[in-house]
Amino acid sequence: MSISIDKIDELISMMTLDEKVGQLNQHLYGWQCFCKNKDGDYELTQLFKDHVQKFGGVGAIYGILRADAWSGMNEVNGVKKEESLQVIEMIQNYLKTETRLKIPALITEECVHGHQGLHSMMYPANISMGMTWNPDLLKEICQEVSCELASKGGNLALFTGLDVMRDPRWGRSEECFSEDSYLTSEMTKAAVKGFQLNDRNGVGVILKHLCAQGACEGGHNSGAASIGQRELREVFLPPVKAGVLSGAKGVMAAYNEIDGIPCHVNQALLTQLLRGEYGFNGIVMADGCALDRLSIMNSDIPLMAATALKAGVDLSLWDHVYPLLGDAVRQGYLDEKVLDRSVKRILKLKFELGLFEERQVTVYPSREKELALKAAQECQVLLKNDGILPLRKDIKSIAVIGPNAHNVMNMLGDYTSFQKAEDVTTLYQGIQQVLGEEVQVNYALGCHIRDCSKADLAEAVELASQSDVVIMALGGSSARHFKMDFESNGAVTTSYDKNEMNCGENVDKASLDLEGLQVELLRKIKQVNQQIVTVLIQGRPHSIGNIVNDSRAVLAAWYPGNLGGLAIAQTIFGDHNPSGRLSMSIPQSSMQLPCYYNGKYSGAKEEYIDMSGKPLYPFGYGLSYSQFQYHHIQLSQTEITIQDLEEKGIDISLDVENVSQRDGYEIVQIYIIDNESTITRRYKELKAFQKIYIEAKSCCSLVIHLDSETFKIWDYQMNHLIESGTVDILIASHSEQFITRKLTILK
Amino acid sequence: MSISIDKIDELISMMTLDEKVGQLNQHLYGWQCFCKNKDGDYELTQLFKDHVQKFGGVGAIYGILRADAWSGMNEVNGVKKEESLQVIEMIQNYLKTETRLKIPALITEECVHGHQGLHSMMYPANISMGMTWNPDLLKEICQEVSCELASKGGNLALFTGLDVMRDPRWGRSEECFSEDSYLTSEMTKAAVKGFQLNDRNGVGVILKHLCAQGACEGGHNSGAASIGQRELREVFLPPVKAGVLSGAKGVMAAYNEIDGIPCHVNQALLTQLLRGEYGFNGIVMADGCALDRLSIMNSDIPLMAATALKAGVDLSLWDHVYPLLGDAVRQGYLDEKVLDRSVKRILKLKFELGLFEERQVTVYPSREKELALKAAQECQVLLKNDGILPLRKDIKSIAVIGPNAHNVMNMLGDYTSFQKAEDVTTLYQGIQQVLGEEVQVNYALGCHIRDCSKADLAEAVELASQSDVVIMALGGSSARHFKMDFESNGAVTTSYDKNEMNCGENVDKASLDLEGLQVELLRKIKQVNQQIVTVLIQGRPHSIGNIVNDSRAVLAAWYPGNLGGLAIAQTIFGDHNPSGRLSMSIPQSSMQLPCYYNGKYSGAKEEYIDMSGKPLYPFGYGLSYSQFQYHHIQLSQTEITIQDLEEKGIDISLDVENVSQRDGYEIVQIYIIDNESTITRRYKELKAFQKIYIEAKSCCSLVIHLDSETFKIWDYQMNHLIESGTVDILIASHSEQFITRKLTILK
Repeated sequence: MSISIDKIDELISMMTLDEKVGQLNQHLYGWQCFCKNKDGDYELTQLFKDHVQKFGGVGAIYGILRADAWSGMNEVNGVKKEESLQVIEMIQNYLKTETRLKIPALITEECVHGHQGLHSMMYPANISMGMTWNPDLLKEICQEVSCELASKGGNLALFTGLDVMRDPRWGRSEECFSEDSYLTSEMTKAAVKGFQLNDRNGVGVILKHLCAQGACEGGHNSGAASIGQRELREVFLPPVKAGVLSGAKGVMAAYNEIDGIPCHVNQALLTQLLRGEYGFNGIVMADGCALDRLSIMNSDIPLMAATALKAGVDLSLWDHVYPLLGDAVRQGYLDEKVLDRSVKRILKLKFELGLFEERQVTVYPSREKELALKAAQECQVLLKNDGILPLRKDIKSIAVIGPNAHNVMNMLGDYTSFQKAEDVTTLYQGIQQVLGEEVQVNYALGCHIRDCSKADLAEAVELASQSDVVIMALGGSSARHFKMDFESNGAVTTSYDKNEMNCGENVDKASLDLEGLQVELLRKIKQVNQQIVTVLIQGRPHSIGNIVNDSRAVLAAWYPGNLGGLAIAQTIFGDHNPSGRLSMSIPQSSMQLPCYYNGKYSGAKEEYIDMSGKPLYPFGYGLSYSQFQYHHIQLSQTEITIQDLEEKGIDISLDVENVSQRDGYEIVQIYIIDNESTITRRYKELKAFQKIYIEAKSCCSLVIHLDSETFKIWDYQMNHLIESGTVDILIASHSEQFITRKLTILK
Repeated sequence: MSISIDKIDELISMMTLDEKVGQLNQHLYGWQCFCKNKDGDYELTQLFKDHVQKFGGVGAIYGILRADAWSGMNEVNGVKKEESLQVIEMIQNYLKTETRLKIPALITEECVHGHQGLHSMMYPANISMGMTWNPDLLKEICQEVSCELASKGGNLALFTGLDVMRDPRWGRSEECFSEDSYLTSEMTKAAVKGFQLNDRNGVGVILKHLCAQGACEGGHNSGAASIGQRELREVFLPPVKAGVLSGAKGVMAAYNEIDGIPCHVNQALLTQLLRGEYGFNGIVMADGCALDRLSIMNSDIPLMAATALKAGVDLSLWDHVYPLLGDAVRQGYLDEKVLDRSVKRILKLKFELGLFEERQVTVYPSREKELALKAAQECQVLLKNDGILPLRKDIKSIAVIGPNAHNVMNMLGDYTSFQKAEDVTTLYQGIQQVLGEEVQVNYALGCHIRDCSKADLAEAVELASQSDVVIMALGGSSARHFKMDFESNGAVTTSYDKNEMNCGENVDKASLDLEGLQVELLRKIKQVNQQIVTVLIQGRPHSIGNIVNDSRAVLAAWYPGNLGGLAIAQTIFGDHNPSGRLSMSIPQSSMQLPCYYNGKYSGAKEEYIDMSGKPLYPFGYGLSYSQFQYHHIQLSQTEITIQDLEEKGIDISLDVENVSQRDGYEIVQIYIIDNESTITRRYKELKAFQKIYIEAKSCCSLVIHLDSETFKIWDYQMNHLIESGTVDILIASHSEQFITRKLTILK
C-alpha cells in the first residue's frame, strides 16, 4: 500500500482501536519473529504471526538482526549479513499482505558503536569516540553504519547520544562521550547528521536516553537523578537540544526518574520541553521494559499506559504495558484522540523513512576498515611517557602481557555483536603485524580481569624477564558470554560474580581500582623488567595511581573496536602519533567522586584532608609525540555589548606551532570562566575546540569562533540569556593548562 | 530607653541611614570588643567604640564569650563564667549611653552543644543526640543551655538544627542529628522548645542552616547542592518547617548554593518559602563571612549587599558587605523601605527578647551534670556484642588503649569551648571511676588518630598482653588547637595535615576508614589478647568493617561530651543498658556513597559488582542488653478515606515485651512504604518512633499515632497532599527488621 503523508489522518480514521494500539507497540524481541527450518530456510514464527494478527499490525520490531549473548543469536541461528534484507523483507511482506491495513513495521536495531548484527564491524565505543574530539570522524562512521543498516532493511538506529557521564562507577560510562555537555553535544550532532545524511536511505536515529541518566545516584544504573532544573538544563539537556535541532527522528526515554518523576511519565520533559521548546516532531520510544517498571508507582497497568502516553511516550519496547492501551481507552483513562496523536507520529515516521514506498538504497563502497582504524588511532590518550615511547622497531624481543593483551571480545565493549575472531585484531596480533617476523613477540595472559583463581603470574614474570620490553595490557571488560543470565531488558543480572565483566549495562562498581591481580602482576613484572608500557583497554576511567608509577608509559585506549590492537601497536611504535584527549577526568579514587572538571564554583572547600579534590589526570589532558606552542592569541574584541555578542559572537585568533620534529594533532580547547553572574557558575566550561594536524616545525593560524550560545546562562529567573560582566576566556591545551584573555560584556 | 513594640515604626522614622545600617550589622568578632587592662579589669576596645560610633549602634555582636582556639580566648584572656554578665552589660551600657538612639545589641553566642564559653558544659554533639532518639532529653538540655546563656546576658543561641546528613565525608556530619529528615525535625522541634521555653529569659534560637547544606557535592564543606525542588522539599525542608512552626526566632542562611542560587541571595527560599509559606516572622542571619563570598558572583559589593537584603538576609555576620548597605541605597541598588523592613525585624526581635526592658532572669538549680550524663549514656549505639558485654567488674586487670582512651578534647567535638581538664571525664578515667581501686586499670596511647610518626604500638601491645580485657578507644577527633590556622569564618584552614583533626567544619575526608595506625594497632593487640571491646569516639560514621571482626564488641559513642568517659564505662560494665540507635547508616566504604536508607526506589540496580549497595549497619540499628518482642500489632483501620485520614490519622497499637532479665529501653520505629503514587517514593520513610523503658520480663502497650502529614507527598504537580493507594506500614526495631501491616487509602 502506497500512501502520501497527507493521507495519514484518513488512514487513522479507518483504523480500529486495536490496530492503533498495534502501531504503538514494539513488543516482540526481533529474534523471536523468525526461525530456520530444517532446510536452513528462514520462516516466520507463530508467535510473530499471532502478535501481528492480534493487533492487525505492529508499530516496530526491535533486534531482528541482533546477534549477541543476550539474544542468543550466533553464527548458527542468527541472520547472516547477506541474508538480512531477505529476512526483514519476509517480515515486511507478511505485514503488507496478511494485515488489513498493510502497514509495514519500523525495523529497529542497536547501532551504539556499529550495528549489533552478526559479524558487523564494531567501531570504538562512545567513550573512545569522545576521546578523539573528532566529531567529523564520528559523522563518517555513523554514515557508514547507517548505510549498512539501510542495506539490511533496517529503519531505526538506536544510538546513545544523550548520556553525559558524571559518575564513572556507572557501568554505562562507556556509552557516554564525555563528562562535558558541550563535547557530548558536538558528538551527538555529528552522529545525527551521519546517521541521517542520506535522506532517502530510510534510516532514522533514535537518541538514547532522555534524560539525565548520567546523574544516577551512586553510579547505580537507572538510579534516581535528584537534580534541579538548572543542573538539568546546564549539564544534561544540551545534547538533547543539539540532537533534536540536528533532526533526530526519535529519542528514547530514560529509565531513571528526575526529582521524583520517572522520565517515562514526565510530561514536562517529553512534551513541553521536547516538543514545545525544542520543536521536536519525531517519536519518543520507551526504553526496554521501562514501562513495566511503572508498576512501582501503580499496579493498575492500563492507568500507567495512559499516563505514559499522555506524558509523551509514543512507542513501547518489549513491555507488557502498551499492549493494554486499548484497555486504557475502554476504561476511560485515555482519550482516543491522544492515542491518535502518537499513531500519527509513528505513521508519519514510517512515511518519512520511505516505508510506504519501494526502498531505494544507494550502495557506497565500504570504508569501514579505514574508519574503524582511524577512530581506534585517534581515541588513544597517552597519559604518561617518560620518553620510552615511541618504541624502536629494532628491538629483539617484546612481551605482551595481561588480560587484555589477546582477548577478542575485551576490545569491543557492551552492545557488541557476535564476531568472527579473525575480524578482530588484539594487541598481541597488532604488535605482530607492525613488527613483522624479525622481532620475537611473546604473549602471556598473566591474570584475568577479575578472576583471581586462574592466574599464572609466574609464567608472565618469566616471559617479561626474558624480553627487552614489556607491554602490559590491563583494564576492564564488557564482554558478555552466552552462558550469562540476563534481565528482560537485556542487561546482565547480578549473578555474574564469576565472570570477567567489570563494565557495561548494569555492571556498576564501587571501587575504580583495577580488579583481580592486575596491579600485583604489574608490580611483580617490574621487579624483573622496568621497561614497561602499560596499555589500558577499558570502559571507564579507572583509578590508576598505583600503576602509573610502575610504568614508563601509560596509554589509555578505552574500547578501541575491531581494529584496536593494530591501532595501539601503531602508536606504540610511532606509526601513529597519539592525539586523543581525556573527555572524562581520571579520578584518583572513587572516594573523591564526583570529580568532573566543571563543578560549581561557589566557595566550597575543594580539598579533603586525606586526598586532593582534584583528579589524577584532568579533563582535556593527553600527550603527543609532538610539542606545541601557542602564539599571538587575540580576541576580536575585548569589550563587546550584549547585543553585538548575540549578533556576531567573538573570534579568538592564535598561531599554533609544532615545535617538534614530528607531525601531529593538537586539540586547542577553549574554556570560559564567567566572573559575574546572577547565579553561581562553574570552575570552567568548555565552549569550543579545534583539532588540527600540524606538520613538524610548522605553524598553523586558527580562528575559533564563539557564538552567542557560548555566553548564555540560565539566569536567576531561569531565562536563557547573556549577562553583562567579565568573562575569562581560557585558550587551553587541557583544562589545567591555559592562557587567559579577558572579555568584558557590556550592557 | 524603654519602648513598646508599636513604637518601632516611629523609632525607625527617627533613624538615619547609617543608624539603620548599623542595626543590620554583626560585623565584629565579640572577643575584639573588650580587653583586660593591667589590673585585670575588663575594658572596651577602641575598635568596638569606633565601630559603634560609625553606625550609631550595632545590630548584634557575635561571640563576646566565645573561648576556643579560633577566638584565642582562654583562661587568661577570656571571660569567666561568673563575669560574663558584667562584660555584656558593660557593652550594652555603652550602647545605651553613648549612642543617640540607645539601642542595645543582640548578643549572639554559639550553643551548638552547650554554650561555647569558657569552661561551659559540653553536651554530646548533635550526631550523638540524634542517636538517642530522645527529643525530650534534647529539649531539657537546650533549656539548660538557654538558662545558662540568659544568666550570662546572651540573647541569641546559634544552634545547628536544620542540617540533614547525606554524605558522611562532610566534616560537619557531627553537627547533624541524622540522615533522616523526620528524626531531624523531631529533634529540632525539641531544641527550639527547649531554648525558648522560658519566654521571658530573653533567649531566642537561631537555627543553622537554611538550607540543604547536607547535600554538599562530594561531601565538600559548602559544596553546591544541585538538587531539585522535590528533593529539597522531601529531605531538607522538613526540619526548617518544624523549627519555624515551633517558633524559632531566627534562621541562619547556609553557605551553599541550591541549583545555582546561593542561599544568601535566594529570595524564593528566604522570603517566599520561609515567610510566605511557613509564616516565619523572625530574622534571617547570614553565615560567617558568607556575604563576602558573594563576590564570586559580582565584585560590586553594594550591589551584592542589596541583592542579599532583597532576598531576605536581615543581619550580617563578620562580613564586609552589609556595612556597605548605605552605599547600596545611595547608589540606587536598594529602596530604603526594603532596608527598613529588615531593621524592623531586628528591632522587633530586640523587643521580643526584652532588650528594651530590665532583664529578668529566673535562676534554676543547675541540672547540667545530670543531663550531660544521661545524654552521654543514651547516645551510645552498641553495634556488636558476642556476649562479652557487659563486662564483669570482678576482673583483675583491664587495659584502656588508643588515641581516644584518655584525651580530653577528643571527647567533645567541634564548636567546643575551652575546658578545664578536670571537668571532662575520659574513658580511662570513667573506667577507673566505675571499677574503683580494686581493679588494675592501665592506659596506653598506642597511636594517634592520624599522625603515624609518634605511635608506640609495642608498649600498647605489651600492656594488652598483661591484661584480662582490652578496651580499645578508636575513632576521630574534632579537637582544635590554639596553634592552628583558621579562616576568617573560623573554619580551620587546609594547613592542618600534621594535626589530629579528622572531623569538624572544613575537615572533610574522602575515605571513611579510620586513619593512622588505628587498625594496625587493633590487629597487633588481637594477636596477644582477643578479649577486645572497641569503643568508637568520633564525629561521623567511619567504615569499620575491618575492626568489627577483630573486636568481640563494638560500641559507638560518637562525641559524648564532658561526662562521656563515665557514661561509656557504665555501659561497658552494665551500670547502663545501651539504648542508642543509628540515626545515620554506617557505610561499608565511601566508595558506595550515598548510602542513606531512604534513597529513591525507582528501579535502580542496588548492588555494585564489587560491593553491596547496602550499608555495614543500617539506619535505626542498635543492640541492647535486653531483648524485645513485638506482639498484637494492629492498625486502628486497615482501610481509610483520604478525608478521614486527614482528619484523624490512624493509630498503631502493639505490645512490646522485654523478654530478658534486664530492664532496658526499646525504640519502636515506624516506617512507611508508599506503594502507589504519582511520583517515585523511597525505599522506606521513617514516620514515627517511640522510646520506651520496659522492665525485665515485662510488657508495655503502646499506641503510636500517625497523623495526616505522615502520608502527604509532593505529588506530580508539586501539591502537598495524600494520594489514594496502598501503603505498607512497617513496625520496626530498625530499618531492616520489621513487621508489615497494609493500609489502603481510599479516595
